[in-house]
Amino acid sequence: MNGAESLLTSLIDAGVEVCFANPGTSEMQLVAAIDKIPGMHPILCLFEGVVTGAADGYGRMADKPAVTLLHLAPGFSNGMANLHNAKRAHTPIVNIIGNHATHHLPLDSPLTADVQGYAALTSDWVRSNGSVQSLGLDGVEAVAASMTGRSANLIVPADHAWTDGAEPAKPLPVPAPEKVADETIGKIAVALRSGEACCLFLGGKALRMEGLLAAKRIEAATGAKLICETFPARLQRGRGRPSVDRLEYFGEMAQERLKGFKHLITVGAKPPVSFFAYPGKPSTLWSETCAIHELANQQNDQILALEALADYLGAPEVAVDEKPPVPSLPDGPMTADAVNAVVAQMLPENAIVSDESCTSMVMSYGFFDNAAPHDWLTLTGGAIGQGMPVAMGAAVACPDRKVVNLQADGSAMYTNQALWSMARENLDVCVVIYNNSSYAILNYELMRVGVDEPGERALSMLDLSKPDIHWADMAEAMGVKASRVTTTDDFKARFKEAMASKGPRLIEVIL
Amino acid sequence: MNGAESLLTSLIDAGVEVCFANPGTSEMQLVAAIDKIPGMHPILCLFEGVVTGAADGYGRMADKPAVTLLHLAPGFSNGMANLHNAKRAHTPIVNIIGNHATHHLPLDSPLTADVQGYAALTSDWVRSNGSVQSLGLDGVEAVAASMTGRSANLIVPADHAWTDGAEPAKPLPVPAPEKVADETIGKIAVALRSGEACCLFLGGKALRMEGLLAAKRIEAATGAKLICETFPARLQRGRGRPSVDRLEYFGEMAQERLKGFKHLITVGAKPPVSFFAYPGKPSTLWSETCAIHELANQQNDQILALEALADYLGAPEVAVDEKPPVPSLPDGPMTADAVNAVVAQMLPENAIVSDESCTSMVMSYGFFDNAAPHDWLTLTGGAIGQGMPVAMGAAVACPDRKVVNLQADGSAMYTNQALWSMARENLDVCVVIYNNSSYAILNYELMRVGVDEPGERALSMLDLSKPDIHWADMAEAMGVKASRVTTTDDFKARFKEAMASKGPRLIEVIL
Repeated sequence: MNGAESLLTSLIDAGVEVCFANPGTSEMQLVAAIDKIPGMHPILCLFEGVVTGAADGYGRMADKPAVTLLHLAPGFSNGMANLHNAKRAHTPIVNIIGNHATHHLPLDSPLTADVQGYAALTSDWVRSNGSVQSLGLDGVEAVAASMTGRSANLIVPADHAWTDGAEPAKPLPVPAPEKVADETIGKIAVALRSGEACCLFLGGKALRMEGLLAAKRIEAATGAKLICETFPARLQRGRGRPSVDRLEYFGEMAQERLKGFKHLITVGAKPPVSFFAYPGKPSTLWSETCAIHELANQQNDQILALEALADYLGAPEVAVDEKPPVPSLPDGPMTADAVNAVVAQMLPENAIVSDESCTSMVMSYGFFDNAAPHDWLTLTGGAIGQGMPVAMGAAVACPDRKVVNLQADGSAMYTNQALWSMARENLDVCVVIYNNSSYAILNYELMRVGVDEPGERALSMLDLSKPDIHWADMAEAMGVKASRVTTTDDFKARFKEAMASKGPRLIEVIL
Repeated sequence: MNGAESLLTSLIDAGVEVCFANPGTSEMQLVAAIDKIPGMHPILCLFEGVVTGAADGYGRMADKPAVTLLHLAPGFSNGMANLHNAKRAHTPIVNIIGNHATHHLPLDSPLTADVQGYAALTSDWVRSNGSVQSLGLDGVEAVAASMTGRSANLIVPADHAWTDGAEPAKPLPVPAPEKVADETIGKIAVALRSGEACCLFLGGKALRMEGLLAAKRIEAATGAKLICETFPARLQRGRGRPSVDRLEYFGEMAQERLKGFKHLITVGAKPPVSFFAYPGKPSTLWSETCAIHELANQQNDQILALEALADYLGAPEVAVDEKPPVPSLPDGPMTADAVNAVVAQMLPENAIVSDESCTSMVMSYGFFDNAAPHDWLTLTGGAIGQGMPVAMGAAVACPDRKVVNLQADGSAMYTNQALWSMARENLDVCVVIYNNSSYAILNYELMRVGVDEPGERALSMLDLSKPDIHWADMAEAMGVKASRVTTTDDFKARFKEAMASKGPRLIEVIL
């Protein structure tokens, strides 16, 4: 078999099932291999930002990598923003980046660029395949590396892909996470028993059901407060699951929330800092008198660490609290909060929510605490254009679950091509577009950096009207059934309909 | 004044008039400065690939830089593919990339990445501003650097932008290009007089009217053949202008065209190599017995070099040849060639053609040789998604000229957000979408790498139907008047109408 076939067979044997692809000429041998060898589901995306965002959504839900197929450095660069988000989400992804044939590369033909230089910016695992014989091994090593929570970037020269004489490689074991030292657990227990105010600051796998249950035991036993990072990769929440507060996006509010704590214990999250700096304001969000303790980082098994800590503290199992009800179905004018209340009320059991609603969700986090149990995926790295691709990838990973994408309009434009792939694959995604015709967050940010009375030229750079974008028409143009709603009642009816049927839908909410 | 104001004033004083922008929080001070200080026209683009592609189109036509406003590393990365094309086009561009405040950067907040590392991949001019006092000077140095035919990447920390105490810097002179040595001209003249077959291989500024007129003199005096690179940044052609053959995209055809030459003399172009490598085929396109001579590269004044060579040869001025007529208006079925014949016939005087038609123009290059005089801009770096943004930027640079964008459907999807900016700015661009519902070029490429009977999974990665994209509806959804045509007569009527009116239009041609 040729190199492409050995690579593909090795990936399939290692458990990879899905390939999000935007191939070019240098990847044609891999396309041919996918054609010839059963076991890999190729999904065409019409822009690489969709490819990598979908791989992120897939990896967050499947806890194993999808493979991407990307065309040289420019194709890779189109996918870098969502790889930035995936890096911050610690998502397993295997990127296969085609490169020119080895003898062609020095000729500097038009599409030539430093593929390795590009790839190294989004991951510390970059390999340019050195021979046709090692392609299979490189593939399984990439899969194993990805399972430590990162993108593995494998660069494949076209001539290695087309040359015969290769063999598949055997799958490698998944690397075991590092165990948290008993000493660390003991020291943190001292803080928790000190009587001083403690916060368990949770991210990563700590936000899965098992992690939250262990955290809840610690909370019940010690009074420590559970707070999760502002943009979790995947938070399991809703009815019957432990509640956790979300740290606010705006630094002033986040500081207010954290100010009383004397100990901040991180589990799968870094100590919280503000997204941006502002003149005269601090960037770190904990108080000066607060000590930071790391229980577990991304190299550790965060769930085991929480369970070990709960056991050490002798914390018993606890029942999940009674929670306040989801807000009742609203009647009044259509606002983002009204939309969110409808979504929280009508969310199906075991749904997946891909949330890139930006300003539209600021006040609604609590609405979902007692909604049907669901997984909530957010904009981990702040690079907008992630919500629709992540929803798409999550739907591929979990075909039996409803995916709801809560989506800001400005961000949606970045990767609107995701709609086409949702239609092609008939994915069960309902996209809710909050159309406020503006980069609303930037209006706040302009004030926050000290510009109080912006004029016409400034506002023209934040405003998405003139012309208004008609999202429902755009979705229909890409094959997705869509509607535009202007009243709360309309939204209720359309959302109910979408929840009751399968397949892609878009509901454009005019705010 | 603060740093942002000093930078902006310095750029305006240095002659920069237009800013293509997709700002974020870290650029809010620059937004405020554009608001406060007159002289810079900000144009919002809803994706950074549009920002940088528009700056490329602007720079090719204006021969001076537009400035871009890009948000941190992820924002920059979204613009890298079109910066790759701009690099290959040697277009002057000044990228202003906002970065976190200097004290915020070490905290590794979610959007943090190695901005300098990203920027260095698209240009050898990268500067991270070191102090508020030097922002003005960095700005004018960036403008001067861009005028040597490259992107200048200036990274601006947010705190330097917001701090007071800066002054504007004075404009710097445009760097003079290197003079071609007399010895080089003498040696090339020997080749041209040898009686052996010679080719003048032209790119860059050599394809402007003055360069072509000088090349024509050399052709007339020596019998050398004029051939231009496959994807020129800007070729001035049409009625009353010298003809130049275009080197074919497909390597086999290009080799055939070049095979008889004993001397290939490059002027503003590199020796031609095939776009991609193929099993068992050579990548260099000239014959083994052909000598390569460089008359002028990108650091030289290519027009002066051609004129000096023509003078050295004693070549007299020559009249431009009679040319074959443009094909008459076709009547038959709608094909890409029929569409191209209509465009060539109806093209207005002094139009600008942004050509990303990919497979749809393969056989129609000759149609435009005797069309109305026009500038022809092409996909220099092969990174698709360039045609609409370049058309947009060209229209901003030349508001009194009609811009026609000949656009493949697959490539158009990459940066479809350009339509919105065309509508907002009411730019005089007519986009012609060749909707063949496929990555047609990849069907050829699959065969060319040796896959003869592709199956369903392979074809699914090359096919853009299922669902069909409705381009006219998508354009209307973004505010651009659009129509979908299925017959040649329809196309004639719509294109005629578009040429007779001002403002953005899209015509979707179903092939």
